[in-house]
Amino acid sequence: MELDFSKLDGLVPAVVQDFATGEVLMLGFMNREALAATLATGAVTFYSRSRQTLWRKGEQSGHQLRLRELRVDCDADAVLVRVETIGPGVCHQGYRSCFFRRLEPDGLVQPVAERVFDPAQVYRQEGER
Amino acid sequence: MELDFSKLDGLVPAVVQDFATGEVLMLGFMNREALAATLATGAVTFYSRSRQTLWRKGEQSGHQLRLRELRVDCDADAVLVRVETIGPGVCHQGYRSCFFRRLEPDGLVQPVAERVFDPAQVYRQEGER
Repeated sequence: MELDFSKLDGLVPAVVQDFATGEVLMLGFMNREALAATLATGAVTFYSRSRQTLWRKGEQSGHQLRLRELRVDCDADAVLVRVETIGPGVCHQGYRSCFFRRLEPDGLVQPVAERVFDPAQVYRQEGER
Repeated sequence: MELDFSKLDGLVPAVVQDFATGEVLMLGFMNREALAATLATGAVTFYSRSRQTLWRKGEQSGHQLRLRELRVDCDADAVLVRVETIGPGVCHQGYRSCFFRRLEPDGLVQPVAERVFDPAQVYRQEGER
């Protein structure tokens, strides 16, 4: 199976979903190597656009994502990564999901979740996730 | 609330999730205008990269997506669009979800869903969704 990495300069968007609850946890990007590493090891690995390197989720925090199922969409230009989470949350701001805010039609933003861990206790360096 | 459209040349990835079941249905992209139209009308609207135009989901098929809740991620560079679906499925190939195939570690692809409608009955023109 060949994915189409051409539309985003070598990347595909990777939607991460909790296998047990269905909650959407985050959106990352994978290049060919990150996808291969994810499939080979079961430890979900992204390509960091800011650091321009592979990034195995949880390499600093310990909050790894264990692959349970990888889905491919109709155009083969996006993947859905269904995971088991290790640790309380995936967001570097301390939430279970990165999608912890609601945008209302009037532009106001409402938090919809509580912090589940203290990022300062987990992340030693800015940008390391 | 200002989203960060700068990382993908004016676009943000938009993950579409069934509000009722949690199923991830598709991934699209929104520019500023598509996001504004979605929030203003409640009819989920994307930016089509291939046609370079706004694309209100269901404009031909009738399979609209009604906005129930719009979430923003921590970096404000992706959105989670929680929807009510009108019609049997969102995929132009006739499936409920565009993520209807599983990619196995050995590279084999397994279908994980059945077709729920006949695309030839619904879509008159290639590229119109």
